[in-house]
Amino acid sequence: MTRARTERLLVERVDRGDDGWTRGRRPDDLIVEEPMTVQLDGTVVTTTMRTPGHDYELAAGFCFTDGLLAGAPVHGIRYCADGSAVDSQFNVVTVETGGVAPTPTPRLGTTSSSCGWCGSDQLTELADRLDPLPPYEPFPLDVLASVTDRVIDDQSLFARTGSVHAAAAFDRTGTPVVIREDVGRHNAVDKVIGSLLLDRPSRVPADDLGLFVSGRASIEMVQKAWSAGFHTLVAVSAPTSLAVRAARRAGLVLAGFVRPDGFNVYSAPTEADGRNLGS
Amino acid sequence: MTRARTERLLVERVDRGDDGWTRGRRPDDLIVEEPMTVQLDGTVVTTTMRTPGHDYELAAGFCFTDGLLAGAPVHGIRYCADGSAVDSQFNVVTVETGGVAPTPTPRLGTTSSSCGWCGSDQLTELADRLDPLPPYEPFPLDVLASVTDRVIDDQSLFARTGSVHAAAAFDRTGTPVVIREDVGRHNAVDKVIGSLLLDRPSRVPADDLGLFVSGRASIEMVQKAWSAGFHTLVAVSAPTSLAVRAARRAGLVLAGFVRPDGFNVYSAPTEADGRNLGS
Repeated sequence: MTRARTERLLVERVDRGDDGWTRGRRPDDLIVEEPMTVQLDGTVVTTTMRTPGHDYELAAGFCFTDGLLAGAPVHGIRYCADGSAVDSQFNVVTVETGGVAPTPTPRLGTTSSSCGWCGSDQLTELADRLDPLPPYEPFPLDVLASVTDRVIDDQSLFARTGSVHAAAAFDRTGTPVVIREDVGRHNAVDKVIGSLLLDRPSRVPADDLGLFVSGRASIEMVQKAWSAGFHTLVAVSAPTSLAVRAARRAGLVLAGFVRPDGFNVYSAPTEADGRNLGS
Repeated sequence: MTRARTERLLVERVDRGDDGWTRGRRPDDLIVEEPMTVQLDGTVVTTTMRTPGHDYELAAGFCFTDGLLAGAPVHGIRYCADGSAVDSQFNVVTVETGGVAPTPTPRLGTTSSSCGWCGSDQLTELADRLDPLPPYEPFPLDVLASVTDRVIDDQSLFARTGSVHAAAAFDRTGTPVVIREDVGRHNAVDKVIGSLLLDRPSRVPADDLGLFVSGRASIEMVQKAWSAGFHTLVAVSAPTSLAVRAARRAGLVLAGFVRPDGFNVYSAPTEADGRNLGS
């Protein structure tokens, strides 16, 4: 089922003119956000505000990148049909592994000890769960520089609303393989990875693909890229320092502020590893 | 205690030149993100990735805007000192009401029924908890148009890192009263509101202040503004459709894409209410 991802509302446009402010009403397309609850084998694992559409990909991608599947195969994904309201039955998605995945601990539970995480704890936890990425042939610099424009050209929701995050998997030529847009940037990434998992499972681990994100690269973006085996993460904006440290730990190329004329490289496997940034 | 909010790392700058790519190493200031757990009277209510600093404001602001205080006064706020690691003891903050606040239900719990929320459920829940805003004198259009530039001028972390969210409370002249920056936009808003609560409690409800956010206006931004009694929410980017519907329910002026030369008004109390957008 396809649900509306934008909604048209009447808004007032205010412009500064020669004689003061001019005002006029006009229709405007706004991005839709609705909460979606993800269950794994019937246990709630998260609720996220998301733009409807590609909900199965989002559910599968989230369970995968959060490490909840732990290698278990996805047997099925379905909307929960128990909701009393018509609208809400499409806001709960259950990922089924037939009980093969370990019983999930609610996310809050993982952080409910009396002592919080510090960043280094988080890096250690990630490194415990995920192996460093295997060696790979780096993408040419021209390809990295071209990705932002190529994805933006294809962002249909952004064109209509002026405000939505995008994520994309791109190949060695810089061609986007999957593009997803969402009001939440984590969701856009989970949808891309979920799409690969469900439609092109041979491409996970995504060891010949790069991941593009339209905003910043936080630790969670690096975690998701690393989980899915991408060797390159390209961001339009800046990474956080924790994201950089995680990317260096993963052996992941992390580029930020990526524009056709240049970008910053925050992490690249060292020459000592026998690999480096491309040319 | 003041902890670093930026971290300097050596990065590689790549630029397109006449003869191909030029590359050079240089230091770069990156925004720090660390997880922080918020407890209310000893019960964990959330863990959020935040930029360290103004942690007490963040904890108080979150408990307040999420409706967890339910009118209870804040007796004290402290770091949890039980952590075994030095770093992590500053990543847990407890808000104390002496048990006056109702025992919090973990956030996940509120969404762990077999049926998720739909947007209309959320609006109903907000409207059940919060009264529509009382009548107020609207801010002049010139003031709304000026806010973005005035806040950006004061964003010290953004100037250094090029990537951080800001929120600000501003008065009737457009002067920022409190500005906070954080890697998470929800956190920046909670810090602003927490600052008012802790340092200028007479300004909450913030019925003569506007709230500025440097990014988009999602339902949660409207919820936080409404909770604290702001009558105007100004966003640099677009709102979601659910945010607009919540703002209209609240009687909140919601302006988006705000620039010196113009902006969109998505919600303004109607003339039938005896109030309207300013002039």
